[in-house]
Amino acid sequence: MPSGYRHTREDVVYEEDQYELTEDGRIPIPYRRTAKYQDGNTIDWLHEEGLERERNYALQSQAGVRGILLPALDSVRMWFIVVVTGIGIGIAGAWLDVLVKWLSDLREGHCSYGFFYNSNACCTGLDPGQICTAWQSWGDYLNIHSILGHSLLQAFIYVVLAIVFAGSAALLVVNYAPHAFHTGIPEIKAILGGYVFDAFLGPWTLLIKALGLALAVASGLSLGKEGPLVHVACCMAYLLTKLFKEFRHNEAQKRRVLAAAAAAGVSVAFGSPLGGVLFGLEELDTFANESDVMWRGFVASAIAAVSLQWVNPFGTTKLVLFQVTFVSDSWRAFELIPWVTLGVIGGILGSLLIRLNVEIALYRRNSVLNEWPVLEVVCVTSVTAAICYLVKVQTSELVANLFQECDPTKGDYHGLCNPTATIENVFLLCLTAILKIVLTAWTFGMMIPAGIFLPTIGIGACLGRAVGLIMQSLYRAYPTAWIFLSCPPDPSVGCISPGFYAVIGASAMLGGVTRMTISLVVILFELTGALSHVLPIMICVMTSKWVGDALGKDGIYSAWIAMRRYPWLPPVDYRDKGETGANLMKPLSQVIIIEDAVTTVGELKAMLAQYQYHGFPIADSHGEFVGYATRQELIAALDHLQLDETEAEAQRKCTFSKNRLRVPAEERVDLSDALEDSIIQLRKEVPQELVVNMFQKLNLRQILFTHAGKLTGLVTKRDVVNLLTSHFPHAAALAQQPPHPRHS
Amino acid sequence: MPSGYRHTREDVVYEEDQYELTEDGRIPIPYRRTAKYQDGNTIDWLHEEGLERERNYALQSQAGVRGILLPALDSVRMWFIVVVTGIGIGIAGAWLDVLVKWLSDLREGHCSYGFFYNSNACCTGLDPGQICTAWQSWGDYLNIHSILGHSLLQAFIYVVLAIVFAGSAALLVVNYAPHAFHTGIPEIKAILGGYVFDAFLGPWTLLIKALGLALAVASGLSLGKEGPLVHVACCMAYLLTKLFKEFRHNEAQKRRVLAAAAAAGVSVAFGSPLGGVLFGLEELDTFANESDVMWRGFVASAIAAVSLQWVNPFGTTKLVLFQVTFVSDSWRAFELIPWVTLGVIGGILGSLLIRLNVEIALYRRNSVLNEWPVLEVVCVTSVTAAICYLVKVQTSELVANLFQECDPTKGDYHGLCNPTATIENVFLLCLTAILKIVLTAWTFGMMIPAGIFLPTIGIGACLGRAVGLIMQSLYRAYPTAWIFLSCPPDPSVGCISPGFYAVIGASAMLGGVTRMTISLVVILFELTGALSHVLPIMICVMTSKWVGDALGKDGIYSAWIAMRRYPWLPPVDYRDKGETGANLMKPLSQVIIIEDAVTTVGELKAMLAQYQYHGFPIADSHGEFVGYATRQELIAALDHLQLDETEAEAQRKCTFSKNRLRVPAEERVDLSDALEDSIIQLRKEVPQELVVNMFQKLNLRQILFTHAGKLTGLVTKRDVVNLLTSHFPHAAALAQQPPHPRHS
Repeated sequence: MPSGYRHTREDVVYEEDQYELTEDGRIPIPYRRTAKYQDGNTIDWLHEEGLERERNYALQSQAGVRGILLPALDSVRMWFIVVVTGIGIGIAGAWLDVLVKWLSDLREGHCSYGFFYNSNACCTGLDPGQICTAWQSWGDYLNIHSILGHSLLQAFIYVVLAIVFAGSAALLVVNYAPHAFHTGIPEIKAILGGYVFDAFLGPWTLLIKALGLALAVASGLSLGKEGPLVHVACCMAYLLTKLFKEFRHNEAQKRRVLAAAAAAGVSVAFGSPLGGVLFGLEELDTFANESDVMWRGFVASAIAAVSLQWVNPFGTTKLVLFQVTFVSDSWRAFELIPWVTLGVIGGILGSLLIRLNVEIALYRRNSVLNEWPVLEVVCVTSVTAAICYLVKVQTSELVANLFQECDPTKGDYHGLCNPTATIENVFLLCLTAILKIVLTAWTFGMMIPAGIFLPTIGIGACLGRAVGLIMQSLYRAYPTAWIFLSCPPDPSVGCISPGFYAVIGASAMLGGVTRMTISLVVILFELTGALSHVLPIMICVMTSKWVGDALGKDGIYSAWIAMRRYPWLPPVDYRDKGETGANLMKPLSQVIIIEDAVTTVGELKAMLAQYQYHGFPIADSHGEFVGYATRQELIAALDHLQLDETEAEAQRKCTFSKNRLRVPAEERVDLSDALEDSIIQLRKEVPQELVVNMFQKLNLRQILFTHAGKLTGLVTKRDVVNLLTSHFPHAAALAQQPPHPRHS
Repeated sequence: MPSGYRHTREDVVYEEDQYELTEDGRIPIPYRRTAKYQDGNTIDWLHEEGLERERNYALQSQAGVRGILLPALDSVRMWFIVVVTGIGIGIAGAWLDVLVKWLSDLREGHCSYGFFYNSNACCTGLDPGQICTAWQSWGDYLNIHSILGHSLLQAFIYVVLAIVFAGSAALLVVNYAPHAFHTGIPEIKAILGGYVFDAFLGPWTLLIKALGLALAVASGLSLGKEGPLVHVACCMAYLLTKLFKEFRHNEAQKRRVLAAAAAAGVSVAFGSPLGGVLFGLEELDTFANESDVMWRGFVASAIAAVSLQWVNPFGTTKLVLFQVTFVSDSWRAFELIPWVTLGVIGGILGSLLIRLNVEIALYRRNSVLNEWPVLEVVCVTSVTAAICYLVKVQTSELVANLFQECDPTKGDYHGLCNPTATIENVFLLCLTAILKIVLTAWTFGMMIPAGIFLPTIGIGACLGRAVGLIMQSLYRAYPTAWIFLSCPPDPSVGCISPGFYAVIGASAMLGGVTRMTISLVVILFELTGALSHVLPIMICVMTSKWVGDALGKDGIYSAWIAMRRYPWLPPVDYRDKGETGANLMKPLSQVIIIEDAVTTVGELKAMLAQYQYHGFPIADSHGEFVGYATRQELIAALDHLQLDETEAEAQRKCTFSKNRLRVPAEERVDLSDALEDSIIQLRKEVPQELVVNMFQKLNLRQILFTHAGKLTGLVTKRDVVNLLTSHFPHAAALAQQPPHPRHS
């Protein structure tokens, strides 16, 4: 038997999910009954599509009404899951907001007539001008009249509750659902690409991610709810797929539903139904394959947004979260200079944030912090809460205020509109941005659910507002300078909108961190309603992506995928430098092959027990290529034969083709049913580019190389992933698993 | 020699573009110098990518600074074309608007102090309330005082000028650039997919399409400028590619630039930069392949929109063409009932419009109309102009007014806001919609440049407004009915926005006609600024696409592609019914094969002269597959050998592989350089679904089928196109060419 090319250990990220062999080296019986794929495997799309095709064919060939009804029922089931997931995530998103609002208000005080009212609900029904007395701060409630004592108590409760919230989120995650930490987007990307990771989508993960997310957001840490909501939506859809056999047994179909769920998640997270579809299109790279999938994503997105509006947690019917109003509906050409500058800054700081985040993640993994995840969360939370208490502002509130224009009738937000304090404001905004970069880089990756979008928007909004304030004060100082010629000469009329500069800053920062383009623009202007200003946003995202790509190829999600070594193929345009398939190929000497009409049943069983490969190529004794069979199909075929465990049976030859004629009938078993139909063969002279391209576009798991009918080697998806992530210095640095779940 | 499988005649739509053979059957010399592909061919993406790869490799392997500079220069050239095209189409779009405005005003009168001013420019600079006397109607200019005479003269000039405009557009198109007729989108889709149609993108086509478009729009025919502008943008980019050798010689690179140009075209046509990118993504199906291409489309779109705003033809800096203002910023759940109804109506009428348009196109081709295209245009124009003169309104103005809410301070548009005339208004709106459906179905396909978007929006807006008026009058009549419970009980406050119903109607109709989804939603809300109402638009487009798809699978562009038989692969999810590749494959007996080490040089030359196939498979005398070579590479290889024209030379055997060892050195020629690297082989047992999928996603031109190293057959793109268009009843009905250009 040729010496083994062991890719199994690399394919499996979570090794404990692999089954144990029995002591005599045989395949244990339970294995045959478990699912086709274990966590850590990559699905074989062509194989799954083949199964689906067979099933459809069987359904359609039913006689009479059943032949029409059964396929229709199939599509009803698919739509049922899409619609229910959409409604579910819409409602979940709405109630999450309610929970977060209540929890974070609880850090400041409580409602005297009902503990479960948040500060807004507690004070509704008042006449304008009336002061709300029902909402009591903790100091008032405990009747502390000394100002110092009052503030100290308030600060103490504020920080302690933050620590309690974040700490309990971390405890929940560490003990019950370690997969519920982080954003979840990298994993979803990998799963949609064919990675098998069922534990990531389980009911415990769903529950703890949702609950932990509410706690984490309420604790005031520098994190957002966006990515985790996508994860929650996917968990919901996954649970629904368990209801129906067709999805349970078909990983490709399951992924089609998950893609729609992810779009619904984004739709709810940003109140951006179009953005959801585009996020699926661009970032998850799923709909490129099939228009049906995009179409379902579109529907799921719309339904999720409708049900979010329906529940309507805060009594506003608007989807637009950070409504922006501008001084003027138009913008001037000279403003492109500060905007492009912001794009450049966003690209640089975005890359910096990614690098910082990666370094901290590596440090966390390799230092004592790895042993004390909850303690780390508690420490970071206390620092964040202390700072937040001084600044007295949550990120989402901060962003909403930074996006606003100064309106004398509405009052001043944080003194931002004070024209005499420009320098102080700019300094404070820059300081906030730097602090937030450090906090965010640290927070994103701790053992709590955490999204990167909102903090990034916050950082960008601070920087953008700072630039806007500088421009505005320049304009006020020199209203007649040539650069401001297109502005009205009277500075009191207003020409610069610092609020819009904050939006631009947010776009720039998001572009630098996520490296998304068009979906980002859509999300941003659905988020802000800044339709008339879509062009500057586009230009700024363009600039920031250009600068960011020049400083480092990967966005933050790709970086995490590479670090955790998920078998995900980035949709990059790979260009080889003259290499051919031969450079990528594992040559024949490193591949385990079944020899048609030579390998015996006993040998085959031993092979299946010894090697964990997904499948084996089959060739005859002359090296002539016969076919390819997955281990699962081989095991099923052997099972089907119901051979006795005698020595004579074990000596029978396995045949897969006409070569069987070389063996007497009583000395062979026919396993040709185990052969795969959809096998792609190439010649090793084909350019490497084409090989990579075929893996990317056809979702392949392996390609076999033949020459003049003879097998010469094979390439697996893992080889291609390694090739495409080879430029990333920390690839696989976090590939081992997070702490084990104690229960689940 | 095996009997021939002739696909050449089918591959070539415009046969006169094929070269003539010389009398002795040899390949004519000029052929060797012409481009690789003639119009009517389909490019071989893999071959082109291979050439590009070789070129890049050669550039990068240059020593020293040249090795860095030359590849950089390459990318500079690409961006140069993208940026210049963006700027060019932005400026062209702006000036086209100016020209159209001036020409259509000319039909009513002229400016007394300057012939080249349009009515708005003529009357600028007046104080409010002052009456514009500088703009004179033709009746006033000729001093005709009788009211009847005045109206008759005005009507006469109005209709005659319309006929002159449309007639001269038709004359220009028929005589100088027959490819400039129609919208151009179907052709662009086919070209981007790999169809070769250089005549379609020539300088004459560019000029005449732009000029003819201005004339056609000014004539008041029921057509829009959207599709033709995309065509104009592609022509511009094509002309720019001619400047650089790398694009002239590489069809794949050329198509990458054209994709960006198409996005820029949409961006200018709708003032919708995001919509442009999404149109490219969804309708042209180009960016799915490469993120780089999408990225360039994004940049081209943004630049085009900026330069359109820069030129700013009408002194407004807004990109939003039909700004919509609503009574209220929110909408009510009960309104989903009329909106979904509108979606259903849009789906039905959209399908009807497509079917009517197809029937008229077939009638035109098969009747006497085919001989008199200009006369047809003149007749349709006179009918349209007569109707328009009575109604006194252009489509774009009508749409803008239908999208407006009634505002007592602004005056009434066409009496639409008169609450006592609801029934009359609904009747008139429906009548207009029906008339426009018939006129549009006839106009779209005549020998003038014509887009389908604006008329469709017009039809939809009429229907939507009618439904809105009905809802409004119901509300006014029964303000306290349970269905209006969520409205304010006082009907004078306003609850229903008939203007927004018009937007919904337009979405529904567009969904039914084009069957686009997400790009349509983005274009519509970039067009109207109706961001807060994006959800109803999404729901309505969804409904209308569902209903439309149930009534007929193809949108109007797909229908035209099928009728004209362009080799374009629709991005549908093809599902076979158990067929395999063997069902699609042309078996070996129908394929012309070069026999390795058997076919002589003379035989090969005869084969190349006799069969117009793009390439030939090569097999040895045992049927063992050796490779594939394109005719162009074979001709180049033969040329390279510089053989004498002697009989002895003609008897030498062509060898492509190690089989050469069977032939003495002096009796053979080595043509192995002509073999293609990127050859895809499958076994004929693979599901047909996978074969179709590979063609769609990898842009293949052919797949070879082998079994155990022996060639068994081949499938070409044309076979797959035939398979995917087989459901369309009128496939290839218009496959012959339009009238010949007399000059060009």
